[in-house]
Amino acid sequence: MGTRFLGEPFSRSFKGALMVLCILLLLIQCSLAATSNKSSNHFYKWEVEYMYWSPDGLENVVMGINGKFPGPTIRARAGDTVHVQLKNKLHTEGVVIHWHGIRQKGTPWADGTASISQCAINPGETFDYRFTVDRRSAGLYGSLIVDVAEGETEPFQYDGEFDLLLSDWWHKSAHHQEVGLSSRPMRWIGEPQSLLINGRGQFGCSLAAHYSNDNSSLSQCNITGHEQWAPYILRVDPNKTYRIRLSSTTALASLNVGIGNHKMVVVEADGNYLQPFETDDLDIYSGESYSVLLKTSQDPSQNYWISFGVRARKPQTPQALTILNYKTNSASKLPLSPPPVTPRWDDYAHSKAFTNKVKALDHKTIPKPPTTYHRRIILLNTQNKMDGYTKWSINNVSLSLPATPYLGSIRFGLKNGFDQTTPPENFTVPYDVMKPPRNPNTTTGNGVYMLGYYSTVDVILQNANALAENVSETHPWHLHGHDFWVLGYGEGRFTEAEEKRFNMKNPPYRNTAVIFPYGWTALRFVADNPGVWAFHCHIEPHLHLGMGVVLAEAVHRVPKIPNEALSCGLTGKKFMTGNNF
Amino acid sequence: MGTRFLGEPFSRSFKGALMVLCILLLLIQCSLAATSNKSSNHFYKWEVEYMYWSPDGLENVVMGINGKFPGPTIRARAGDTVHVQLKNKLHTEGVVIHWHGIRQKGTPWADGTASISQCAINPGETFDYRFTVDRRSAGLYGSLIVDVAEGETEPFQYDGEFDLLLSDWWHKSAHHQEVGLSSRPMRWIGEPQSLLINGRGQFGCSLAAHYSNDNSSLSQCNITGHEQWAPYILRVDPNKTYRIRLSSTTALASLNVGIGNHKMVVVEADGNYLQPFETDDLDIYSGESYSVLLKTSQDPSQNYWISFGVRARKPQTPQALTILNYKTNSASKLPLSPPPVTPRWDDYAHSKAFTNKVKALDHKTIPKPPTTYHRRIILLNTQNKMDGYTKWSINNVSLSLPATPYLGSIRFGLKNGFDQTTPPENFTVPYDVMKPPRNPNTTTGNGVYMLGYYSTVDVILQNANALAENVSETHPWHLHGHDFWVLGYGEGRFTEAEEKRFNMKNPPYRNTAVIFPYGWTALRFVADNPGVWAFHCHIEPHLHLGMGVVLAEAVHRVPKIPNEALSCGLTGKKFMTGNNF
Repeated sequence: MGTRFLGEPFSRSFKGALMVLCILLLLIQCSLAATSNKSSNHFYKWEVEYMYWSPDGLENVVMGINGKFPGPTIRARAGDTVHVQLKNKLHTEGVVIHWHGIRQKGTPWADGTASISQCAINPGETFDYRFTVDRRSAGLYGSLIVDVAEGETEPFQYDGEFDLLLSDWWHKSAHHQEVGLSSRPMRWIGEPQSLLINGRGQFGCSLAAHYSNDNSSLSQCNITGHEQWAPYILRVDPNKTYRIRLSSTTALASLNVGIGNHKMVVVEADGNYLQPFETDDLDIYSGESYSVLLKTSQDPSQNYWISFGVRARKPQTPQALTILNYKTNSASKLPLSPPPVTPRWDDYAHSKAFTNKVKALDHKTIPKPPTTYHRRIILLNTQNKMDGYTKWSINNVSLSLPATPYLGSIRFGLKNGFDQTTPPENFTVPYDVMKPPRNPNTTTGNGVYMLGYYSTVDVILQNANALAENVSETHPWHLHGHDFWVLGYGEGRFTEAEEKRFNMKNPPYRNTAVIFPYGWTALRFVADNPGVWAFHCHIEPHLHLGMGVVLAEAVHRVPKIPNEALSCGLTGKKFMTGNNF
Repeated sequence: MGTRFLGEPFSRSFKGALMVLCILLLLIQCSLAATSNKSSNHFYKWEVEYMYWSPDGLENVVMGINGKFPGPTIRARAGDTVHVQLKNKLHTEGVVIHWHGIRQKGTPWADGTASISQCAINPGETFDYRFTVDRRSAGLYGSLIVDVAEGETEPFQYDGEFDLLLSDWWHKSAHHQEVGLSSRPMRWIGEPQSLLINGRGQFGCSLAAHYSNDNSSLSQCNITGHEQWAPYILRVDPNKTYRIRLSSTTALASLNVGIGNHKMVVVEADGNYLQPFETDDLDIYSGESYSVLLKTSQDPSQNYWISFGVRARKPQTPQALTILNYKTNSASKLPLSPPPVTPRWDDYAHSKAFTNKVKALDHKTIPKPPTTYHRRIILLNTQNKMDGYTKWSINNVSLSLPATPYLGSIRFGLKNGFDQTTPPENFTVPYDVMKPPRNPNTTTGNGVYMLGYYSTVDVILQNANALAENVSETHPWHLHGHDFWVLGYGEGRFTEAEEKRFNMKNPPYRNTAVIFPYGWTALRFVADNPGVWAFHCHIEPHLHLGMGVVLAEAVHRVPKIPNEALSCGLTGKKFMTGNNF
């Protein structure tokens, strides 16, 4: 089975999470035609460096891997070991790579979360990421697609495949954006200037300017095809079935994809199979991945638009466009019809209808959820103020990560490494989630939810009204180290009575799930992975402002942590103090 | 005695040196009125953070200390201990502070040079800079002025004083600039948009627009005085003597200062007294500091311009301006005459005439140079190419700093920390310094000149033609940990015969000295300070491209290095490996 990896905001720390420039792309391509039945080791040397690039036609500085943007491609198979020796060639900034979706069983230090699983890799230094690829996919800015293990087959067939990695792009530097968020009063980073497909977008011109429904005053883009910002064209044969792997690494934008004249069949989400269902358009939130099947059954003498537009925020960014090019035509032949129109940004009924169709395929490929839970944690998501700063908080605690990675602090009992008090499991005061907070004040903290090994944990993500009246935002929450079952979604405040509506039959098994405005989402997972794991809103500015929690399980069972992962903060000091020189 | 500190490009490492945004300001004010005769300890908590600021009217992101730009002021006295607990509140970048001019005797780890004296301070971490202030001054972006010790007096009197810290300012981010320099082919960062006096400049308007000799089409600035970019006015009483402390922390620009209708008497350079001499204008290179005395003997019913303009590069940046305001007038009263005109940028005769007037006052306050040397190192400065990249090299080696600070590598015998071969002491092949290099190819390296403890070392800085015909640049070289005697300047290639022209009588004692185009400069110093010390061109892009060397002396005599200074690279690994857990 092949799946998708995702973008990941842990460029340096939660606080560095906004760094749009820091998001790196990693592609691991699968091959179904593998012949060996032994797992193998894949070794790569990667160098991270800033470079000039024109992702949308406007030159900017981007973070590249081995001179590429997005980064290089890796091919692997489930069960294989990937070993990436990452050298940080930035001059002043630390870097980590989170392999989004990879569970890192037995290698929690390779999860790539600064302040949680490891110390950031300093400029000039190298870190070895070595881990087993399991059935899911991973990445930082890019894709990691893992093929099914030898002897396994996928529950669907296709003749070819495409990978579409989606991102949003700002022209202002990440520093500017970060400083704005951390300012008092906060200065919002604003909507992205461009949406990118596989690192390519068009700013200041449009591929579809000549259609009458394009109300922008943009002129038609003048493209030879060799530009860094030329669209990634999907070249297809007629009457075939293609798998399109979609993954969103956006910092902010929720997206919707439509393909002119074609329907899609959704077959996989976050690396797990779904009951196939047909759709005209698909919502994809930051941190999510999907596979869709596309039949090239339309008039082969024409080309067709593929469009991505913004959802869940009032869009101020043009659609990302590319062409589904039936090979019988020139790729530059414009489709007869204009690009598919993205559903209205605030048509949440449309979004919920889509989300409710997402069901696990069966329990041959996906484990069944335990019928009961050991612990239920309710996480109220609120927007707050603190001394004039804007924050996002969970049960009134805004996450502010420590200098020492938790993995080391907990493993070695360094109690000064972080708040030793467990964060709240619920919000006990009466709270009207439909109204702005009566008392908007919050505090910061960095306590940890310690989970019993192999305990079943329920998390209720509870949305609420933001600071302004009649505003509640959409938040895609991403869990590291695990998949969870999405047991249900609901409106308003969660009550125990809702539990009987939980889908225990075929809940989708995912690592990212959205909470809709004024709604709740119920998740269940088994704490079966010794380590320390982030669980957070995947919208980078929200994470930067504190929208996340930290979970730990059975850290005493973690094997020897490589020294390189702990050479900072209190762990760095502790180990060095042991020596006299 | 009060002196001046200087800006310092060691924001993160040589390679990060370009980071204009990273230069921080530190002001240590002296007080001649001290009453205690005991040295005291000054403790400060500083936090480094990015913030919005408008240094020249255009808002940008700057690095501030405790919310200030330039940073806060410290008052100290020679012999006192300064203890700055520095917290790095940047989100992704490491930081160090170099206390330019402070010799750091016994505390070489506090010199603030990443890769040389310490590991960069990681985001969220704190480092304790604790050192004795000696007679000189120091700083990163700002001033450190140290008063004379109790019972000592200065060889001149004055009624009041002003501190003018000079810097240059780009609107493009440091990342953009760095990436340009490191690109193939190199993209030059260009001339600065503004010059700043005490962090204040004016972009897009002029304080002196209404004079007929202002050929720019700029309009008069509309300033209330409360703007972050309002000029720093020097308010003076008539018929008094003022000391003006000038220091240049520019990344690129060499400057010249003139004061309308007034002459200056130069009395101090780099923290050491000079034979006073009168001048109409003064050249100041990056890394240098001067004190001048100004008599307010002119018509007190008028105000007068103070102007700073670019020298030694074809200027594309307007003069920095401020007002010498006789208090009898409003500060907004414009002077009768236009601002002093900066001498032509390439009038090197003018620059040399000024430099040749700089002589040490006497040997009561300044030690006499040893009459002979133990070792003479000749350093040929060349511009080169390497695989299509542009470099600056010393004896054909372009400095590329290692990940492990030398101080730890040498102290603990970690031979993999850097090149174990001593870099060349001379350029042996026939070399015509008046022509572009015949073979422009160079190599990178990070070897060290190991100096005998208390040996007397001569350095001949030899300039040459750059890559282009008829181009030779000016380079101000700065030595850490020591002062040197400037024994002489000359034209063309240095020969042993020039030695008899050396000024052994009253050579100025400094930490920064310039080499003029196609010329040489002879320096002498005593290797009396156990530690590892940078010696480099203070022009940040030149340093970034490799224009520096590393000196080490008696590292076995360095007392216990704080662990915090060594928690990176091989030293970090070494100490952690000693522990089993």
